[in-house]
Amino acid sequence: MNKEKVLALFEDANFIKGIGIQPVRVKEGALKTKLNITSFHLQQHQFIHAGVISAIADHSAGAVATTLIDDDEEVLTVEFKINFLRPATGNTLFCDSKVIRGGRTIIVAESEVYSKESGKGKLFAKALVTLAVVKKSKIL
Amino acid sequence: MNKEKVLALFEDANFIKGIGIQPVRVKEGALKTKLNITSFHLQQHQFIHAGVISAIADHSAGAVATTLIDDDEEVLTVEFKINFLRPATGNTLFCDSKVIRGGRTIIVAESEVYSKESGKGKLFAKALVTLAVVKKSKIL
Amino acid sequence: MNKEKVLALFEDANFIKGIGIQPVRVKEGALKTKLNITSFHLQQHQFIHAGVISAIADHSAGAVATTLIDDDEEVLTVEFKINFLRPATGNTLFCDSKVIRGGRTIIVAESEVYSKESGKGKLFAKALVTLAVVKKSKIL
Amino acid sequence: MNKEKVLALFEDANFIKGIGIQPVRVKEGALKTKLNITSFHLQQHQFIHAGVISAIADHSAGAVATTLIDDDEEVLTVEFKINFLRPATGNTLFCDSKVIRGGRTIIVAESEVYSKESGKGKLFAKALVTLAVVKKSKIL
Repeated sequence: MNKEKVLALFEDANFIKGIGIQPVRVKEGALKTKLNITSFHLQQHQFIHAGVISAIADHSAGAVATTLIDDDEEVLTVEFKINFLRPATGNTLFCDSKVIRGGRTIIVAESEVYSKESGKGKLFAKALVTLAVVKKSKIL
Repeated sequence: MNKEKVLALFEDANFIKGIGIQPVRVKEGALKTKLNITSFHLQQHQFIHAGVISAIADHSAGAVATTLIDDDEEVLTVEFKINFLRPATGNTLFCDSKVIRGGRTIIVAESEVYSKESGKGKLFAKALVTLAVVKKSKIL
Repeated sequence: MNKEKVLALFEDANFIKGIGIQPVRVKEGALKTKLNITSFHLQQHQFIHAGVISAIADHSAGAVATTLIDDDEEVLTVEFKINFLRPATGNTLFCDSKVIRGGRTIIVAESEVYSKESGKGKLFAKALVTLAVVKKSKIL
Repeated sequence: MNKEKVLALFEDANFIKGIGIQPVRVKEGALKTKLNITSFHLQQHQFIHAGVISAIADHSAGAVATTLIDDDEEVLTVEFKINFLRPATGNTLFCDSKVIRGGRTIIVAESEVYSKESGKGKLFAKALVTLAVVKKSKIL
């Protein structure tokens, strides 16, 4: 696993750095991220916006897939589906992502989003994410 | 249709206002939004981040569903699925959302995301979004 | 839990009975089903057809949601998403479904499909399923 | 387009032939299928089973993707998501599938399911389907 490459995804993606998503723990096939919630992240009922939850679920899935690829490869999100299970509140949002199928060209990961206050027993959202593994030379 | 209520969704949702998503055109069951892209919205390969595209697709779907509900109702996203069809670039992102099934308790909408530069013929993403209609008194 | 009502779902749904899906174990919020595979269930490469896997994933999710509802209620599938993780083979297909969010009007379940031969460590498919709880009197 | 190859998908997939799904019209990137409904296809409330609707939506998407690939290639369903928009009834079910993104390795299609009786204006279901293009030699 190229851990620096995974960590760089959180520095080099402006949107992710800009909204404040940070890596917490990186292992091969499993990864945790967090986000300190401010009023910036809220929607009209003062819940955490579905777009914020989607962003952490998607980016964390991309990062966990990156723990399994070669140095000359990158991943791109092909698609994802996310269920919002309850209104999201709290000061610190967490996302646990893990690979459920690692292939040479397609990786499937799932992300679970919750807050420090809710705990893992009360998930805010669950996502299934499909990622394509592509040669770096084909993207840049 | 309560147009003010729909437009307020873009003022009152901090995250959406913060990242810059704006309504362009609002009709019953059909709605267009836009986002002026800056470096803030990009990912590590300088494409528009999937999280940005998800946010505009989700919020626009919520807004178009809101064109069909009563004054004492709100919508909440139950879930969505989004396919990223090609890397997203351009200076102005658009999202066209329309209701494909309007019910009393469940509304289904679809969102198509593209840029002024790509045109509608080269979609960046397509989403199918399920929304629940809930009494305002049950949320707030 | 009304176990008879859950088991009846496998007798009263012609398509499910017709293709051979059977309940194996029913608990509140968790359920296992099986299907003896014959040549009827295959696709053009002699793998188990994605439609068969979808049918067992969907129906089992509906059945597990039914373990949580009242006697005068039924569930209907609102939508589901399913990832096919590897080609599906084997003589006995299993599906484990569990509720990940039980609500009064919306239930979310997930289904994992595998075969006796592959084991749970090599899932063929994983699905996230959204179900609506509706009064029986509104359906029939 | 290799039309014979597309039509063969309906002869060589036992499950599809067994439940009665037939091609109606095949064009490059667009395809129509049908299914004569019998009591075999129903669920416990006498609606057409979600599994039937999923099977026609998935297989038709696979077939329409096949209109775009080379002779030494096949497609496999990576994943799909389907929304059930209203209870499905009628004697003849139709599915219109079209490619919304044709790539060298990934094809995305959408399927709309309705009946002769409901017409296209009252869709029963809409699906977004992701397919992988693979060399025939890697599958068989």
